[in-house]
Amino acid sequence: METTTLFKDATKEEIALAMEKSWEAFLIYKKFSLKQRADFMRAIAVALENIRSAVVPIAMEETHLPEGRLNGELTRTIFQLNNYAGAAEEGAWLDARIDTAVPERKPAPKSDLRKMLVPLGPVVVFGSSNFPFAYSTAGGDTACAFAAGCPVIVKAHPAHAHTSEIVADAVLKAAEKCNMPEGIFTHVHGASFEVGKALVMHPLTKAVGFTGSLLGGRALFDIANQRKEPIPVFAEMGSINPVFLMQDKLQHEAESVAKMYAASITQGVGQFCTNPGLIIGVEGEGLNTFISVLSKEMKKIEPANMLHPGIAKAFWQKRKQALEQKGVHTEATSEVQPEELQGAPTLASASAAAFLNNPVLHQEVFGPYSLIIKCKNADEMKQVVLHIEGQLTSTLMATNEDMSSHPEILDAIQDVCGRLIMNGVPTGVEVCLSMQHGGPYPATTDSRFTSVGADGIRRFARPLCYQNFPDHLLPKELQNANPLGIWRTVNDQLTKDKIK
Amino acid sequence: METTTLFKDATKEEIALAMEKSWEAFLIYKKFSLKQRADFMRAIAVALENIRSAVVPIAMEETHLPEGRLNGELTRTIFQLNNYAGAAEEGAWLDARIDTAVPERKPAPKSDLRKMLVPLGPVVVFGSSNFPFAYSTAGGDTACAFAAGCPVIVKAHPAHAHTSEIVADAVLKAAEKCNMPEGIFTHVHGASFEVGKALVMHPLTKAVGFTGSLLGGRALFDIANQRKEPIPVFAEMGSINPVFLMQDKLQHEAESVAKMYAASITQGVGQFCTNPGLIIGVEGEGLNTFISVLSKEMKKIEPANMLHPGIAKAFWQKRKQALEQKGVHTEATSEVQPEELQGAPTLASASAAAFLNNPVLHQEVFGPYSLIIKCKNADEMKQVVLHIEGQLTSTLMATNEDMSSHPEILDAIQDVCGRLIMNGVPTGVEVCLSMQHGGPYPATTDSRFTSVGADGIRRFARPLCYQNFPDHLLPKELQNANPLGIWRTVNDQLTKDKIK
Repeated sequence: METTTLFKDATKEEIALAMEKSWEAFLIYKKFSLKQRADFMRAIAVALENIRSAVVPIAMEETHLPEGRLNGELTRTIFQLNNYAGAAEEGAWLDARIDTAVPERKPAPKSDLRKMLVPLGPVVVFGSSNFPFAYSTAGGDTACAFAAGCPVIVKAHPAHAHTSEIVADAVLKAAEKCNMPEGIFTHVHGASFEVGKALVMHPLTKAVGFTGSLLGGRALFDIANQRKEPIPVFAEMGSINPVFLMQDKLQHEAESVAKMYAASITQGVGQFCTNPGLIIGVEGEGLNTFISVLSKEMKKIEPANMLHPGIAKAFWQKRKQALEQKGVHTEATSEVQPEELQGAPTLASASAAAFLNNPVLHQEVFGPYSLIIKCKNADEMKQVVLHIEGQLTSTLMATNEDMSSHPEILDAIQDVCGRLIMNGVPTGVEVCLSMQHGGPYPATTDSRFTSVGADGIRRFARPLCYQNFPDHLLPKELQNANPLGIWRTVNDQLTKDKIK
Repeated sequence: METTTLFKDATKEEIALAMEKSWEAFLIYKKFSLKQRADFMRAIAVALENIRSAVVPIAMEETHLPEGRLNGELTRTIFQLNNYAGAAEEGAWLDARIDTAVPERKPAPKSDLRKMLVPLGPVVVFGSSNFPFAYSTAGGDTACAFAAGCPVIVKAHPAHAHTSEIVADAVLKAAEKCNMPEGIFTHVHGASFEVGKALVMHPLTKAVGFTGSLLGGRALFDIANQRKEPIPVFAEMGSINPVFLMQDKLQHEAESVAKMYAASITQGVGQFCTNPGLIIGVEGEGLNTFISVLSKEMKKIEPANMLHPGIAKAFWQKRKQALEQKGVHTEATSEVQPEELQGAPTLASASAAAFLNNPVLHQEVFGPYSLIIKCKNADEMKQVVLHIEGQLTSTLMATNEDMSSHPEILDAIQDVCGRLIMNGVPTGVEVCLSMQHGGPYPATTDSRFTSVGADGIRRFARPLCYQNFPDHLLPKELQNANPLGIWRTVNDQLTKDKIK
């Protein structure tokens, strides 16, 4: 990538300085009100809108993603900032809990106790390659950290370093406009792993957000846990997003389901963490129709440029490795010959027995690729479920009839994923409070959190309890008068009421 | 300990079998209703009351804790089970979120999305030495795991293995009475580290709760993170619980504060994780009075048996090491000569400079020991705050005058602890929703969670999102009619209302 050479890797000294400034900023920013945080986030949203026409062409050049997609993603990024700003200000995420004193209690009086979430400290964010806006520089992790009250240090993804630089400038301008402390946001470049390592190891780093590969995410997770003071790492590391095709569904709708999936598998050249990489069905006429229609559809779809040469190379390597496995049959590839750096839609199939015995077939082939698993019967399908690793999503294509005859499948797939989809496609991740984007390992490093939706703010905050504090020394969120009007659990009752 | 030899360490094979049974139980228990879980917990509470007269004498023998304390602790354990059962059933902890579909939305329709917490799977609980009931076999971690929908495997603490065995029997009887699946609760013995290691490493273990030493907790944390599939470990590893004595407070109340602290430091032979092990004040008459009264009080307090020989040995070793450090002055020790296995109240002092330069003085001396740090002025006190590691609690002894003249101290100590106490003692941990028992490392391994209070349930659960599900296939908690009448966030509004 010619663009990456424009930006020099940060040195250890630069990183140390950045972290110290970030900590200084934390000591100021943590005391800012929810409204100040929200206003800052909204100012970033405005700043992003202002750079739209300048940044989208550069992102197109760097990522090979089409203009429409990038414009849509930028809109989503702006929406996220505004949405999380609203959630931050609304305050329910703080989990404010108040238990008032009972001085007359026997044998010992009960103290007044009040608890709410407070920020962890500086958060290091690793931009993703596949979402240059929404999960990069001013993306979901950054928005969640700002909402939580944490400064952010972004390591730009080297594949779209220029885009990242422009977005970072917009964030910094918004910070200046909102009188944020210096160090509230830092943007560093780092093509080498050493930069990321130094950021995660720095003692002033208090949490990490990452979106990328299993290899990269696990490496950062391991570094963070080997620190003297371990810190939480939320790494979202992709998935093969299994889709279970039930028999009655296939009998009635094989063709329309196949068409729906052809689009989902190849959307954005398959470069989504929720791309359906594994499709499981029971042998029979329905599955045959599904495969034949899906093959026909996928052959028609033209190859397209992938995000960067590294991703294209990995796609072809992993695809080759998968297709060479024993018992794997190539069902369809795009009829158009791919150019260099392009990914070509590919459909393969294998028996459940082959899948169950071969870990290679459980690995993600990041790109427009999907593997169909043919099961002998529903029992074998259940065996497949039991052998699948943790996933961001699982999907059931099923009629009510299917569900009443095979409740065990629905039951079993709940244990392997963070989001369970009925009669839809896993691609398309809604930004809302009920979204869960995080699943059992290796989908993410901590299934108890999400990286999409305002609940993601909680990744970067911890509860702090105030015992026996005079009202005026408490944060506003916990004062008797509830001046911010937020939801609080007072003596085990959720309420917005004042106390007394 | 003669009693430990009665119980053999579990073998690897026994552990593997136990984990498999636990997993089978999980597949059944996870589908039980909140009411069934709560009823089971309440049945355990009843069973514990029934064994009170049988188990307390044995616990006295094993732990050397007095009858009154053990009876109180058993009562607290019963309260915890009932309290968390109530919270589990009330359902707010599930964080139910619903965003209803918007089929007409452009450019793409919005799906119906509903999310709630679901159990992680089998939880391994390590009983603590200092709370044979409340943080052991049927203690807080076990209660939280059952509430979350997880089976539990307890590794008995070898120092009170017999007590643990009797409590385990009571849990198993309650399980039988409530028709719980076999494997819902497993009790294993293990005096060697290998047993704990094997439990944490087993692939079917999905989370760990631990209360004990930094060494032990960190070792389990490291093992859990080095697994192919890392799992969350909530380890509560103690604290020195700094207490900041502000000048105006000392000027007016040095004597009464000293008396209050003499009791707190020596309560239960100092064997509490919230024991005040570090007291920081500014040199002057107030501090001198405080030290002299505290010394006088502590000299009067007699030595008493510690929990077990290992703890007594560690107390004397660490005490010796601390007192031998350069600049450390022994202010007072109990006037009565301690017997073997007893801990003797000890008060030491050092300058802030000595403390700042010597990591040994930052270490916990588990037992009736406290170190007073004499600062030259408030600036030096702030330096001390900045050099303190993560703590369960911090305490401020301060008047309003102190707080208005030194807000920077209140501000700074918020960053190092999970609970902040004003004009009280850190010992005495209330069981309620607003309690935070968990702080920045090394107090605990994840400051984002608590091990006391019903919020501790969340340690063992993760969100699962249902997309586009027909109402009848959703868990009751997420169905339109809200049949359980729980709090839910529906389209960003907290409500108990039905949908439509």
